[in-house]
Order: sequence, then structure tokens, then C-alpha cells
Amino acid sequence: MSNADTRSTLAQTIGGAPVHRRTHRRVDGRNVHLYGYAPHVGVPAPQPPEELARGAELRLHPLRGEWNVYAAHRQHRTFKPSTADNPLAPTAPGGPVTEIPFETFELAVFENRFTSFHPEAPMPPERPAVRAVPAHGLCEVVVYGTEPTGNLHAIGQARRRLLLAAWIDRYEALFATGCEFVLPFENRGDAVGVTLPHPHGQVYGFAQTPRMSQLAASAFAEGYDLASARAQTAATYEVYSLDGVSAWCPPYARFPYETWVLPQRRVAGPWELNEQELDAFAALLGDMTARYDALFGEPTPYMMALHAAPKGQEATYHFTAQFYPILRAPGRLKYLASVEQHTGVFTVDVMPEQAAAALRALA
Amino acid sequence: MSNADTRSTLAQTIGGAPVHRRTHRRVDGRNVHLYGYAPHVGVPAPQPPEELARGAELRLHPLRGEWNVYAAHRQHRTFKPSTADNPLAPTAPGGPVTEIPFETFELAVFENRFTSFHPEAPMPPERPAVRAVPAHGLCEVVVYGTEPTGNLHAIGQARRRLLLAAWIDRYEALFATGCEFVLPFENRGDAVGVTLPHPHGQVYGFAQTPRMSQLAASAFAEGYDLASARAQTAATYEVYSLDGVSAWCPPYARFPYETWVLPQRRVAGPWELNEQELDAFAALLGDMTARYDALFGEPTPYMMALHAAPKGQEATYHFTAQFYPILRAPGRLKYLASVEQHTGVFTVDVMPEQAAAALRALA
Repeated sequence: MSNADTRSTLAQTIGGAPVHRRTHRRVDGRNVHLYGYAPHVGVPAPQPPEELARGAELRLHPLRGEWNVYAAHRQHRTFKPSTADNPLAPTAPGGPVTEIPFETFELAVFENRFTSFHPEAPMPPERPAVRAVPAHGLCEVVVYGTEPTGNLHAIGQARRRLLLAAWIDRYEALFATGCEFVLPFENRGDAVGVTLPHPHGQVYGFAQTPRMSQLAASAFAEGYDLASARAQTAATYEVYSLDGVSAWCPPYARFPYETWVLPQRRVAGPWELNEQELDAFAALLGDMTARYDALFGEPTPYMMALHAAPKGQEATYHFTAQFYPILRAPGRLKYLASVEQHTGVFTVDVMPEQAAAALRALA
Repeated sequence: MSNADTRSTLAQTIGGAPVHRRTHRRVDGRNVHLYGYAPHVGVPAPQPPEELARGAELRLHPLRGEWNVYAAHRQHRTFKPSTADNPLAPTAPGGPVTEIPFETFELAVFENRFTSFHPEAPMPPERPAVRAVPAHGLCEVVVYGTEPTGNLHAIGQARRRLLLAAWIDRYEALFATGCEFVLPFENRGDAVGVTLPHPHGQVYGFAQTPRMSQLAASAFAEGYDLASARAQTAATYEVYSLDGVSAWCPPYARFPYETWVLPQRRVAGPWELNEQELDAFAALLGDMTARYDALFGEPTPYMMALHAAPKGQEATYHFTAQFYPILRAPGRLKYLASVEQHTGVFTVDVMPEQAAAALRALA
């Protein structure tokens, strides 16, 4: 077998305890990283050789100034498999080899089989009247555990802290491979198009910072003071805070019940948080998930992402995690339709001050 | 009654015939415009006095440079009423008074009851750490006819030409009230959140040009040559063309099967099209709707909007109508999830060249 296996402990600790990482290179060339409080043990399951698509390209939209990613092979990605074919499950002895070729793990990260970005994406063919470049970068899937159901609240604080340690490690690793912007995120629920119910998130590593993300970085560089905005508006817009970390509905939220989890002091990314702040940040991610589910009376579909500084822009950026739930009332989806998609202007019918009050009242 | 009633014929003609407009001012202060090949006759139904909300505000998102609109009263808008309560139906004698207080009409435009923008939107209260201004502008609903079902194809060419005449008139009227950017659009289908099945579109008149729309106008001002891009790529990306108007899948499409209907020569808006181009443009809008429905085997949910020059930027802008369907395959929705919503980067898994070929093959 051509795979490789490396083990290390991270520089980070959790409550003084080391975090272990094992990296296994699959036969198909993709890396699987296993993070845990204990060193990972177990022999990888034998894997069939396989050729995977990596041929995506970026094209420039000349009227929007944005580079979008074109990956035709993603049209064939796994769509709501049966429980027996869950690709995010551990690999049972004698069973089908999943994306994680081990019998057990605490938290796993692997390179996406249906990837948008790849370090070796080839040069796209020349075409008239369109600017295209290879879709360089990396796409990873983060599996929160071996349990096939659950959420950021249900996995508990110890697993959330491990997830945060893994995110910090992925930031470091993806920046080191040349990525300029890294986006850890979680899509939750059928209503946002999630095709696998097993609790998981993803990490996208972008070779170039997306225009919208650069706009935010520039706003910070030009002096936007988020720490002060939060502090000045806490009475009305804060859901709650813990040890220097706040859950806050921005007065300029676009999604109904949009909430940001943010350190009260400016830090560029989670890697600059101290231990107490990391604990609080992890707790608030779980707490917000529980509040949403209590508010809407169902597992709330949302899009959550970590917004940290693009490489080289750490001096002024203020790190946040942003939850965009897509319900506007119990059982009522918020749709993004023509006005949003054609002009970028959001029509918001839940006032952020009311959203904050409703979420706060669930304490 | 305090209402007023004015009748005129438009400067535009269709096939040499005049287009008639009757404007009725409702008791609640909203205008209803009835467009037709024949002068509209009929007595308005008596209307109860009513106070309508107009208190929306714009707030600046400091990290996106975008002004979004906050209109809490829209949370109470009509949601999938029973057929008997269809607010877009004509008003039957003795029946409930609908939004159009007449027994019949050809095409009707009225000010939205649940409006995002209003010419008299009040100054929002001062709040710390947020920039807010009144949501000035106008929101109108365009009802394609009295039939409770149908679509841009089914209504036929004569009605489409009347719709185009009405759009041109609305551009003129809304620019005249001080709007800087006007967006006629149609949301189609439950899957994009349409709450009223009666065939209709909308027009939003913005007091300020949205940032994204300004970005497009600036790209044209800086020399982006859409006429040349279309001509150079027609063999691969054109669906079909008729009398100087093309249906074209842009090589940099963001939505699966996204198609633009555009005049081959640069014009700033539909008001600059000649009679032959107007006929062709109307025909292609219907044709694209029929092609989508044939391709997907169902009424295709889409977001379609006309992109014309913001006021004062007519010299360089190239007018298009843009269809954004949200199916990626029969029965499969395209979801916009975290990557799109958090970074603006679209992951496109239907290549525009394949989309064009598939739509072209339906001829």
C-alpha cells in the first residue's frame, strides 16, 4: 500500500491536556486527519485504488468582479444515501470502506471526494471572452464524531473544544499550503441542501480571498470597530455573553435571527483566543444551536461559518462566527429571491432587535 | 371618495396601435395602473378606508458596503390564500375587494400593500453604531392578466408585448419620481418563496442604486463589451437568436441553466429597443420559459429580472434580462448555502456550455 501514516500532538492543549492528530494518506491520495484526546489506534481498512476528479476552474464574472468555481463532476455527488451507505460513518469490519477507513475515531477531517478546489487543478482550456484560472485550494469535510445524528449542541463541550482545536489546526495547515483565505463552515438541514445527515461541517481553503471576504477585511483595515459596535449596542442586540465572548445579533443582520458569536476583544482568528475564550466560544456555538431549536421547535436549518482574517490581514480583522438561519418564523422559510439575487439587497422582515430579544428570552 | 382617475395613451405603440393606461388612485392612497390595447372601462368598486404601513428603513452593512431594507410589517404579508381570497384577481361584483378594484382588466400594476420602499418612509430613530436612512422608493406588483394560472409563455405574445410596454412606462414613471435604479422582476414557483400563484411580477424602484448593480454599471463604464463577448461565444453559448435579440448562457453564469435575453447591440434599457427588437425580446422571454419547463418537465422555479442602466449611466450600460432558474436537474434544487452566502463565491456544477447545448437542443 502506498499510504503514509503520521502522528503528532498539536501545539494547542485543552485544559492542559494534549490534542493528538493522526494523518493517514488514503490509497486515492486524499488525507484523513483524526483528532482526539487520546492517540488514535487502529489499522486502516484496505482501500481500492481510485482515480478522483480534480479538474475544476474559476471564472471571472465581469459584472460582479467575483470568481466563481465550475466543477461539473460535483453534479454526481452522493445524494441522501441509505444509512448502510453513510460515507461519513466509521468503517465497520467487513463492511464497505467509507471516507474514514477506521473502525472508530473522535473527530475526523478528510479531503472532499467531490472537491471544488484542488492543489493540482489543471489549467482550463483557452476560451474567447472569458477569464479562467485553475481552481486551486482545498476542500475538507469535518466529521464531528461517529454518531450518525446530533448537532453542535448535542455533541457536548468536550467535542466542541476538540472541533475548535481541529479548526485552528486546519487554518494553520491550509495557510501553510498557500491558501490565502480559509472558511470553516457548517450547513445544517435539508432546507439548505444538506445531503448527508451525519453531523459534519466543511473547510474551504481558497487560493485567492473572495471579493466579499476581502471587502470585510478592507472595512476593518479602514477602521470599522466591531468591538465598539458590539459594546455600544449590547443592551439591545446581545443574546448573552460569557467570559469575553458574546452572541450578538448585528443591527445590520441580513438573515432573520442572524447571530454572530464573537470575542469582545479584536482577534484575527480563533488561533489568537486564550483558553478561557476558547471554552466560552465553544460553549456559545452549542448554546446558539440549542436556542434556535427551542425558538423554532425543530432542528433549525442554518448556514454557519467562521470569518477569520485572510492571510496577511491579521492586524485589523475582527474574527466572528456567523449563524445564518433560514427560518423567519416556525415552519416558515426565508427565501432569497429576485431582489436579493439580482441586486444583493436583502429584505429583512425580522428586526434584529426583536430577534435578539426573542433569543435572549430563551435563557 | 377621494380617489382620482386619469386616462392617457402611452408614447409607445405596439404594431402601430396605441397602448392605453388608466390610473386609479385607491382610497388607501395607492395607485393602480391598468394597461390595455383598449381603453379601460368600468367603475371602481367601493373601497374601505385603510391605513397601510410605510415605515421601512435601510441600514448599512459595514462589512459588505450594502444597504439592506428592514420592513417588519412584511412579516404579516398574505401567505398562500385560498382561491376565493386571491388578492390579484379582478374584483367580482359583490365579492371581496381585491388589490385591483375592477371587474376586468388586461394588465394591472399596483403599489404593493406590503411595501419595502415608500416615497414617504419616515426617518428611522437614531441608534448607536448603525447608519440608517428612510427606505425611500416604490414597490409595485404587475399582474399579467385576470387568469389565475399561467406563465410568461402561456400568456402569449400580445400580452407579453403589453407587459413590455408597461415595464417601459414604469421605468419612466419611477425614474420621474426620483428613483435612481428600477428593477422589474418575476419570482416564479413555490421553491423561490412565491406566496401567490396568480401570474405576476414586481417592480422595485430604488432611491439609491444597490452596490451590486452599481458594480455592473461601473464594469460597463470601464469598457466591458458584452456585445462582443456574446458575438465571440455565440457558437457555444447561444441558445437561439431572433431579429437582433439573443438568448445566451453567459460563460460565467452562477446559476445552473442561467440564461440572459439580450439585444445584440448595446442599449441602456428596453426603452431604447426598436419595434422589431421589442417583438423579439418579448418572444424570447416566452420561449425561454417554455424551454425551461420542457427541460425540467415541470413549471421551473426561477428568478428573472431586467437589468437596465441606473439613472445617468445610460451611455455605456448594456441592458439584459437575466433568468436564474434554481433547478440543477429534474427534481433537484440548486441550494445556495454557506460558501455562497458567506463569501459570494458560487459553486457551479452545470457548465454553462452544457446548459446552452441542452437548452438549444429543445428547439
